This record gives sequence, C-alpha cells and structure tokens, in this order.
Amino acid sequence: MKIIQSKDELSEIISQIKCSGKKIGFVPTMGYLHEGHLALMRESKKRSDVSVVSIFVNPAQFNDQKDFENYPKNTESDSEKCRNEGIDILFLPEADKFYPGGVPDIEMKIPHLMKNLCAVTRVGHFEGVLIVISNLFHIVQPDFAFFGKKDYQQYLIIKEFARSCGFGTEVSGLDTVREPDGLAMSSRNARLGQKERDSASLIPRAFRIAGDLILKGEKSPGILREIMSDVILSSPLNRIDYIEVLNPENLSGIESMKGDVLVAIAVFVGEVRLIDNMLFKIQE
Amino acid sequence: MKIIQSKDELSEIISQIKCSGKKIGFVPTMGYLHEGHLALMRESKKRSDVSVVSIFVNPAQFNDQKDFENYPKNTESDSEKCRNEGIDILFLPEADKFYPGGVPDIEMKIPHLMKNLCAVTRVGHFEGVLIVISNLFHIVQPDFAFFGKKDYQQYLIIKEFARSCGFGTEVSGLDTVREPDGLAMSSRNARLGQKERDSASLIPRAFRIAGDLILKGEKSPGILREIMSDVILSSPLNRIDYIEVLNPENLSGIESMKGDVLVAIAVFVGEVRLIDNMLFKIQE
Repeated sequence: MKIIQSKDELSEIISQIKCSGKKIGFVPTMGYLHEGHLALMRESKKRSDVSVVSIFVNPAQFNDQKDFENYPKNTESDSEKCRNEGIDILFLPEADKFYPGGVPDIEMKIPHLMKNLCAVTRVGHFEGVLIVISNLFHIVQPDFAFFGKKDYQQYLIIKEFARSCGFGTEVSGLDTVREPDGLAMSSRNARLGQKERDSASLIPRAFRIAGDLILKGEKSPGILREIMSDVILSSPLNRIDYIEVLNPENLSGIESMKGDVLVAIAVFVGEVRLIDNMLFKIQE
Repeated sequence: MKIIQSKDELSEIISQIKCSGKKIGFVPTMGYLHEGHLALMRESKKRSDVSVVSIFVNPAQFNDQKDFENYPKNTESDSEKCRNEGIDILFLPEADKFYPGGVPDIEMKIPHLMKNLCAVTRVGHFEGVLIVISNLFHIVQPDFAFFGKKDYQQYLIIKEFARSCGFGTEVSGLDTVREPDGLAMSSRNARLGQKERDSASLIPRAFRIAGDLILKGEKSPGILREIMSDVILSSPLNRIDYIEVLNPENLSGIESMKGDVLVAIAVFVGEVRLIDNMLFKIQE
C-alpha cells in the first residue's frame, strides 16, 4: 500500500493508472475507521482494479469548530486497517496544503435535496462536503466512489452532484453497518461515555419499534415520528435534532407511507450528535 | 479537424490524447464566431498540442428565453473558421443530449465575485455558466482554457471556480478584440440594425473619454461614471444596465482610482444587451 500526502504526487500516479485502463474505486473518509468504512473498502476492492482511500478531516464541512477539533483521529491504526483490507493507495493530505490559501469561497448546492434534515440544522455542512468531494474527485478521478447510507442525505447529494457536473464517477451508497444493539457504526461513537452509549441505543430501538408499527399497517408519518420521538426521549440525555419520514428518491415529505420510505434521525446524545437513516418497504 | 457530437465519443478521444502526454487547450463558445473567438483559438494553438473548440448555446445560462431563442447561429461558417485556424476537434453537442433529463438542479456560486454587475442584473446567468463549464471541463479535461476579457466577470468567476474545485485547468483571459470604432466584438453585434450600431459606438467613445479623463488626473470613480453615462445616454436608443468602476482583482468597489482599475459596462442598445470591460492603469 502506497501512502501519499502530496496532491501532485497522487495526481501523477492516478494518471498512470487511468492510462493503463484500470478502474479506480474510491472511499473518501475522515478517518477513525470502523466496520462501516471497511465494508465500503471491500466493495471497492470487489468492483475496481485499484482502490484508493482518503483520510482527511475536512475543515470546510464543520459548522461547529469544537466538533472539528474533537473529531477523533488515529492515523496509525487507520493505515493498518487499510493495509489489511488490501487498499492500494492511502491518501493522507496535509491539512494546510489541501486548501492553499484557506477554504475556497465557493458555494455549491443541490437545492431540491437541501431543503431539510442536516442541510437545515447544520448550515453550510453540505457545501463544505461538496468542496472537498470536488477536489478529491479531481485528484483521484474515480470510476466508482462509495458512501455509507447512514449519511443518506450526503450520499444522495454527492450522487446528484457528480451527475450534474459530469464527473463521470458512479456514486454508490452501501447499507449501514451496525453494532450488535443496532446502533449505526460512526466515528463519533468513540466520543460516547457509557451513559451516553446506553442512551444512544434508543435510536435503533426506535427504528425497531417503527418497523413493528409499519408491519402492523401504520401508514401515518406523524404517528411514526411521535412514537419514535417518545422512545428516544425516554432518556434525558437525548435531544432530538430531527426525525423525518420522507420519500427516499428526493427527500420530499409524504402524507401517507407507501412504497419505499426513508426515516431520517439526528439526535444529540449528551454533546455528541448522531445521525441514522433507515429505509422501509411498505406492504400495500 | 474532427467534428464530434457525442459526449462519450469525445471523452474516449480525450482519454487517448491525455495518455499520449499531449496538452489540451480549450475554447468553449456559443458559436457565431468572430475575431475575438479566433484570437482565443490562436492562443490555444500556440500553447497547446491539441486545441478543442466547443459550440453550444447553453440554455442554462439564459435568464431571458427570448434572448436564448434569438441567439445567432451559423454552424457551417463557424466550422469553416475553426478549420481555418487549425483547430483539432470541434465539439458540437446536441442540445437535448447535453443535459439528459434537462438542466440539472445545481447552484454553484463564487460569492465574493457575484455581488454586482451581471451577477445581479442577470440573475442565474453565472450559475448556468458554471454548470456548462463544469460539464465541458469534465469531458474535455483541458490543461488550458481561454476566455475573452470582454466578459471580465465571467473570466474571473471561471478562473476562481476551476481553482476552488481543483479542476487542474489553467484559465487565461485574453484582451478584447474590437471593431475599427472600438466596439467590442460580440456575437450579439449581429443583431444590431444600423441605428443601433451607431448608438453602440458610444460605448467605446465613453471608454476613450474615460481614458482621457484618467490621463488628466481624474481620480473619482463617481465623476468617471457620470461622464461616461452622459456620453452613452446621448443616444435615446441606449439604456444603461450598469457602469461600475472596480478593483479588477476582486470586483469590489473603490473610493478613489489608483493602480489597476476596471471599468465595467452593460448597455441595452435597443433590445440588444451589450457588455464591455476595460482595464486602466492609473499613474500616481
């Protein structure tokens, strides 16, 4: 596995790979890798000739400076994990060289996918994601890029961004990998103390209860949200940022649940903000 | 000269060129080519191994449907001109295949360069320009791209866009090519009747008078604008959209003229909207 810090050096290597006709798979991450990331890497390995992982805690996408500073890091263990997965290239750009002259003053939006959820409660977050994705995609020139559906809105936005701008990258979303109690794997889970971790498990419990209600024929998004909200708020450590029941194609609201339905949740557990998304298929 | 209509076919050819190590120069146009475009092509020929011209009247950048429909076209004569300049590839995408599914719903802005001038009076125009540029750059993968400084704000925005997103394309602005009376070459000039053409010549006259005033030591942007405005409005066919005296680095307003100064003008001559930009160097 090559570990590369310089954008120019990576560009050079990528050009050679492209010209050899090999397909490049790409897993952009912010590090502190967990099983969710490893699943993305395995998919990349399966579908591509050369797999590239980047680890870069992107300052442009944090609306909260404290969250940025507290974002967990462990480059050595991350490198080891990438190596074990058979990753070909690990890109570790240096923070101050990635954006020479600072985060660029550019604003990119996919309006119809940025009307709710994290686009509204984390103002500027996805704009920052698109800045880093645009720069990373131009360096890595991936044929395929892999994202987790835990961050479902991010996945949809990046997929539409790549299509709209003509990147020529196929963006895939992979199923969320979960802890035994159902909590979505997230680098932020590392910041949970034992009490917070217990409270966090109310999120997957709420999803299970939602699944049961849907099986029993519940069709009202409002009732689903209300019951899920009650479950999550049964711990005083939890504060709900949003719970939404939406059309997974375009994130628009729905009057009644039918076909495929997305349930999107963001919860502050103590000071740690966790998000999760689950797709349900409603039987007629 | 290869004439190519299909994006996929062009992508294929470009890949081969890139892998042969040749440098690609690119002149994106909306056709109805004039000497200004030819000057861009000659610069591309000088600096690149392979020169690509595109002709595509981009629906995404017209805020006025009538202006879009009236935009002059002459593909046969344009092709001839490209051939005469020794252009290697002419890209003529078909309108309905360039944006399959319609103009994408994406909004890209360079906020600090889009606070005035055409960004304000032609709402949505530059957003549409950036959509087409992003798509074209991804297909053509140019090492160099050439734009006229007649559209100075557009040039600055595209240059900053390419840098911010990491396109790896060097964006150059070339001096405006002018008619004998000083009117900037523009495809839209073809739409001027004789009376309008006479009125349009007041724009370069206003620039000449501005140059004289500056030589005589005038330092006030306000006085310059006022006098230029009087000159242009001496024809009743002219209606001023804007006249601004700005810092050419970042398009911000200035209190007093010193160093390099940009004078930016947009005028409706009858129904035809013309723009022009001129840089002045102020002697201390």
